[in-house]
Amino acid sequence: MSRVYNFSAGPSVLPLEVLEKAQKEMLNYNGSGMSVMEMSHRSSLYQDIIDRAEKSLRDIMGIPDNYKVLFLTGGASTQFAMIPMNLMKKGKIDIVHTGAWTKAAIPEARRFGKVNIVASSEDEGFTYIPELDKSKFDPDADYFHITTNNTIAGTRFTELPDTGSVDLVADMSSNILSEVYDVSKFALIFAGAQKNMGPAGVTVVIIREDLIGRADDSVPTMFNFKTFADSGSMYNTPPTYPIYICGMVFDWVKSMGGVEGIYRRNVEKADLLYNFLDESKMFKGTVRKKDRSLMNIPFVTGNPDLDSAFIKGAGARGIVNLKGHRSVGGMRASIYNAMPVEGVKELVSFMKEFETANS
Amino acid sequence: MSRVYNFSAGPSVLPLEVLEKAQKEMLNYNGSGMSVMEMSHRSSLYQDIIDRAEKSLRDIMGIPDNYKVLFLTGGASTQFAMIPMNLMKKGKIDIVHTGAWTKAAIPEARRFGKVNIVASSEDEGFTYIPELDKSKFDPDADYFHITTNNTIAGTRFTELPDTGSVDLVADMSSNILSEVYDVSKFALIFAGAQKNMGPAGVTVVIIREDLIGRADDSVPTMFNFKTFADSGSMYNTPPTYPIYICGMVFDWVKSMGGVEGIYRRNVEKADLLYNFLDESKMFKGTVRKKDRSLMNIPFVTGNPDLDSAFIKGAGARGIVNLKGHRSVGGMRASIYNAMPVEGVKELVSFMKEFETANS
Repeated sequence: MSRVYNFSAGPSVLPLEVLEKAQKEMLNYNGSGMSVMEMSHRSSLYQDIIDRAEKSLRDIMGIPDNYKVLFLTGGASTQFAMIPMNLMKKGKIDIVHTGAWTKAAIPEARRFGKVNIVASSEDEGFTYIPELDKSKFDPDADYFHITTNNTIAGTRFTELPDTGSVDLVADMSSNILSEVYDVSKFALIFAGAQKNMGPAGVTVVIIREDLIGRADDSVPTMFNFKTFADSGSMYNTPPTYPIYICGMVFDWVKSMGGVEGIYRRNVEKADLLYNFLDESKMFKGTVRKKDRSLMNIPFVTGNPDLDSAFIKGAGARGIVNLKGHRSVGGMRASIYNAMPVEGVKELVSFMKEFETANS
Repeated sequence: MSRVYNFSAGPSVLPLEVLEKAQKEMLNYNGSGMSVMEMSHRSSLYQDIIDRAEKSLRDIMGIPDNYKVLFLTGGASTQFAMIPMNLMKKGKIDIVHTGAWTKAAIPEARRFGKVNIVASSEDEGFTYIPELDKSKFDPDADYFHITTNNTIAGTRFTELPDTGSVDLVADMSSNILSEVYDVSKFALIFAGAQKNMGPAGVTVVIIREDLIGRADDSVPTMFNFKTFADSGSMYNTPPTYPIYICGMVFDWVKSMGGVEGIYRRNVEKADLLYNFLDESKMFKGTVRKKDRSLMNIPFVTGNPDLDSAFIKGAGARGIVNLKGHRSVGGMRASIYNAMPVEGVKELVSFMKEFETANS
């Protein structure tokens, strides 16, 4: 039984090399006589693993020295509360509402202050990134929140908003490490690991140092960024094994030519699929062209029976997890960093065949 | 290079059978063509994994139907805040102060209300479990907090406090599944996985249903037990791989005769070490006899040079992670469920040899 092409939106495909290394080291890491899962997080052996993971991430993202890298838990959903708990001082933020994730983030932030929705694409089911009118930005906001890539809707910001002196906070859960970002343009970047970094259970927060220590005394220790910044993410036991896998994925990105190399491959993969969608008479992309995601590509036939037959037929060939999110319907191909070009070729090839057979 | 005997206090040794199964399934779980790490948490494949993990835990602990099992993140340290956020209604709790974990829990609970320390063993470095004077209990407290086993001090409650109508909340991080507890005596049990359940990164909360939904609107979604109770721990992506490993550990416990069988083995292992400590002229246990832990056994020679030589000599024989916590000094042998009897025999055998050689 061989491996499938897994188009899951997350958790999702990991580099085969990483899984093979994890498999090899499962019972005995580097001659230690134990699994990484069994290691004390206070051991020099594990300290080396987390230090190298952080260093590798810093290298591939070019993270400036005045930013801390934190390995947390609870996913992006926890950050929707933790960020306002730590960064809301004046009690107001700006946000661009582009899908399910900002829909979840807005009510959490509202527990702590005022949320100004500067633009929204809800009117058309989040199928585009709205134009931004700077006169609607609050120059006095604590921060400005965006989701750089929308996993469900399949859109992405191809240009970052110019927020002036207001700190930019980005949820990069579904496109971190997929294209080059200048970290210095952000105050805080957060991302659940389970798309481009590793297994579910670890959340990466990259935060400019001056934002640490702003939380007041009412904030519990475990929800205060300072706790993790001061302890190298080791105030308590971190998710040691997921961090170990992430470290290997960061090294893999480096081996692929870094984020730049990965980005070129991502463009190649996305082009294969979008070019076909643009010429197909059966399959249609659902997103405004200029805002198309490189990671998540929803498409439909317009006929639910045909969609079902397509998903079933693909599954029979080992092309799996193509069912679209219930809010969009149809299909969605998530082509994260670890999806090989061959996987997308296989998918497009089956789409062509299916279209011919069903026309 | 073979496996060592790993006496780490946590993360700690896992059953070899579980690691071998995880290794075997790493690239291809059950013919799915993917790793468990790569699986959508919304797939029926993964739903089956988490359902079976919960069922297995319910079976081995005899968890009554009116309790929910939640798979969370953030460790016991997050529960120190999350529990008062959810359960403090009158704004006061009772706690027995028995070591490092209650020391961390007390200030977190104080952010939300009054904390009544009904007894403490801090006066003698937490080397015993204090006698409880029921007249000091607050019959009107929201709950009564204990740590059933103290990882660092090496003590455990051999008898549960009779709290009358006040709900008992227990931090069982370091002895869950090590002995039989009647779950119905507790309102809430919480435990980080990384000692007796699996890898770090998942926290199990077992909560009586009537306690769910008590949090007020100020509590963020991700810190509200109701969020996880209503969604089968799947409001957002749970730590899928750590939960998978936990499920296999629960099955392993079942295969060992359940918690009763494991308990008998734990007593056998602890007796081997305590009996030797009681007869040794060189090594001494640090804990009052009647309060000795079955899981964490601190011991000292009284001579730091001898302690160091012992730890080094043991390490050379593949008996590792015996260095005591800095607050106690000397040595600590953590003999969690997955430590085989042979590991304790090896340790005691080396202790005897070391004592003879250095007397």
